[in-house]
Amino acid sequence: MIKQIQGGVCAAKGWSASGIYCGIRSNKNKLDLALVYSSTLASVACTYTTNKVKGAPLYVTQKNVANGQAQAIICNSGNANTCNANGIEIAQAMCELTAKELGIKASDVVVASTGVIGAELHITPIKNGLPQLVAELSTNGHLRSCQAIMTTDTFSKEIAVEFNLGDKICHLGGMAKGSGMININMATMLCFLTSDVKITSALLQKALSEVVADTLNMVCVDGDTSTNDMAVILSNGLADNELIATENEDYQVFKTALFEVLNYLSALLAKDGEGATKQLICHVLQAPSILIARAIAKNVIASDLLKAAMFGKDANWGRILCAIGYTEGDFSIANISVTLSSKAGELLVCQYSFGVKFDEDLALKVLAEDSITIQINLHNGNHSAVAYGCDLTYDYVKINGDYRT
Amino acid sequence: MIKQIQGGVCAAKGWSASGIYCGIRSNKNKLDLALVYSSTLASVACTYTTNKVKGAPLYVTQKNVANGQAQAIICNSGNANTCNANGIEIAQAMCELTAKELGIKASDVVVASTGVIGAELHITPIKNGLPQLVAELSTNGHLRSCQAIMTTDTFSKEIAVEFNLGDKICHLGGMAKGSGMININMATMLCFLTSDVKITSALLQKALSEVVADTLNMVCVDGDTSTNDMAVILSNGLADNELIATENEDYQVFKTALFEVLNYLSALLAKDGEGATKQLICHVLQAPSILIARAIAKNVIASDLLKAAMFGKDANWGRILCAIGYTEGDFSIANISVTLSSKAGELLVCQYSFGVKFDEDLALKVLAEDSITIQINLHNGNHSAVAYGCDLTYDYVKINGDYRT
Repeated sequence: MIKQIQGGVCAAKGWSASGIYCGIRSNKNKLDLALVYSSTLASVACTYTTNKVKGAPLYVTQKNVANGQAQAIICNSGNANTCNANGIEIAQAMCELTAKELGIKASDVVVASTGVIGAELHITPIKNGLPQLVAELSTNGHLRSCQAIMTTDTFSKEIAVEFNLGDKICHLGGMAKGSGMININMATMLCFLTSDVKITSALLQKALSEVVADTLNMVCVDGDTSTNDMAVILSNGLADNELIATENEDYQVFKTALFEVLNYLSALLAKDGEGATKQLICHVLQAPSILIARAIAKNVIASDLLKAAMFGKDANWGRILCAIGYTEGDFSIANISVTLSSKAGELLVCQYSFGVKFDEDLALKVLAEDSITIQINLHNGNHSAVAYGCDLTYDYVKINGDYRT
Repeated sequence: MIKQIQGGVCAAKGWSASGIYCGIRSNKNKLDLALVYSSTLASVACTYTTNKVKGAPLYVTQKNVANGQAQAIICNSGNANTCNANGIEIAQAMCELTAKELGIKASDVVVASTGVIGAELHITPIKNGLPQLVAELSTNGHLRSCQAIMTTDTFSKEIAVEFNLGDKICHLGGMAKGSGMININMATMLCFLTSDVKITSALLQKALSEVVADTLNMVCVDGDTSTNDMAVILSNGLADNELIATENEDYQVFKTALFEVLNYLSALLAKDGEGATKQLICHVLQAPSILIARAIAKNVIASDLLKAAMFGKDANWGRILCAIGYTEGDFSIANISVTLSSKAGELLVCQYSFGVKFDEDLALKVLAEDSITIQINLHNGNHSAVAYGCDLTYDYVKINGDYRT
């Protein structure tokens, strides 16, 4: 059984965290430097953005985790350290200074940055802040570290779960940041996960890659793939369970816990999408393949026309059919049904790919809620997928366009 | 030499057109039925949306043009005749009624519809309107027919050109509609072209397909591929030039004229994108292939983040690098330069893929204009492409979300 608990990234044994304001941002009321630390070396696995233009920290992290081990995560907000001539040098320096202060190896540090692209990141505030950041490491530090990675997020996003492997109690916690930043502009996503499960880095990577495909990779705020996206999991083995080295039952339990955590964070990321007034959840059922199910769910959730209609509480299901139709892949469009639902009720709007008459008053009520589920059944196979997104609002345009005016 | 002239779709010999209000729309101040007619049979070529969910008229048109010949175009606005159980039947009836009134064959009629998806289209107003529509056919009817295909377009879009093939004066005219519709919601594009050049339908198709790839297919308003997109060209041969049956010099001249017409209409479609306050033109230079050049130009022009920044006059070039970076294909991101320009000046913002200091005051002036050119040089090949788009504004959200509220 997987039980939700408190503690975020500090819920697992041996983990502590902290978050401070060090001076990267001009706004002193926001934290801008986060540290997450394990008392012992941990197995590590990562997934990165597929953008060819990558933030410098991603290259340094990739190098540092190549041996499958890491012990700390240092992350700043307010600046993405991307497209900077000295970016690698700065990211490297962040690792070295963090390692020195913690008494660990620089190559055991995961480094990440989030914020404006192409603005120089200075090392001085980070260097000056590190002693305090390390001094404040605590098992209560999860919330502050979570706050320190936020950009235009309007609320912090963390979760932890507890579960058994054999007779051992194990833990997995995580935090994530989404889109938005006072000084900016990008839909950056970062996700850091910590655990005390004993697992090889190879299987940790396998579990992360597979679960991310169904969770973080199914979140769409505006369709722009960030340069700095990164999801990292570290697991230090302090739960003392039997080492997971094959895809046994324990692996399946761990993977289920990981899914629960990432699914929870993904839904929050969508809910807090820039300017969003409501969350959209798109379930695609009975598709001929998992890839087609995912592609359809993503296209529907990413359609600006549909997103604007949802903002306007307009049950314009033609836009859903339109987005399904421009999805690549071999599937039948002959027998599609579409249902819109929320706490206020459920509404069948399309059957056998043709419109059905529906109650417009009920439609308004259903779409007035802050979480709308769009269920699409292709009746063309047995694969399904879920994507998370949000509506397109005046505030999205405002946040991303009005900054300098 | 290709010379721009008046006359739209009636500029070529033998062509007439008309546009009326027949009662499909509830708003009687808008026209909703258009007819374009050639006094003789014409070679015909078409390109269609790649959306799997297609409007019923597309299927009927596809069948009717299969023999390479057509003589008239009937098009209604206000209703897309898409996802309707009796859609094919209605589209077929539109052809039959038009043919009967004109005294031609139903299989020589091109039929198109644009408007709301999934609302039943009734034949009665069309049937009742056709006698008047045919009676009003005239060489001055081009503007009214152009108006009758508009949806939320804020201005009509037509053009005509004159050019010589041998000692014959030839003509090519066109009209297009873009996105927007009082009753709706879709980014539908329709484009109808008429000519008096004598050319085989095979070469007409080749020229159309090739030119569309560089023009209509490079326009992006919101990234939603419509169900009803269609570009049609009819050429009746009345200019009496030597039949173009091979890719000879005449073919090249004709193709150049076609490019000029479609490029002009494409730029207008972008300029009149829903809610747009400015046109965006993205030039990609020195790319390793034409497909990569096009893909980059499209991704940049389609980025919501960049579109919102352009609306806000924010020279946020990091978003351009971001969109370049998530383009698929094998190309180098090591040596990218980006220039923003308009009537007010030119601004180098990124060189060798790193930011350069620029004058923020000049940036504001450059971006305050109503047409902004984004020039991207990859320094990684010798292929180029141009895409047309527009900014993302409050009004886009309003048009597409606020309709029922």
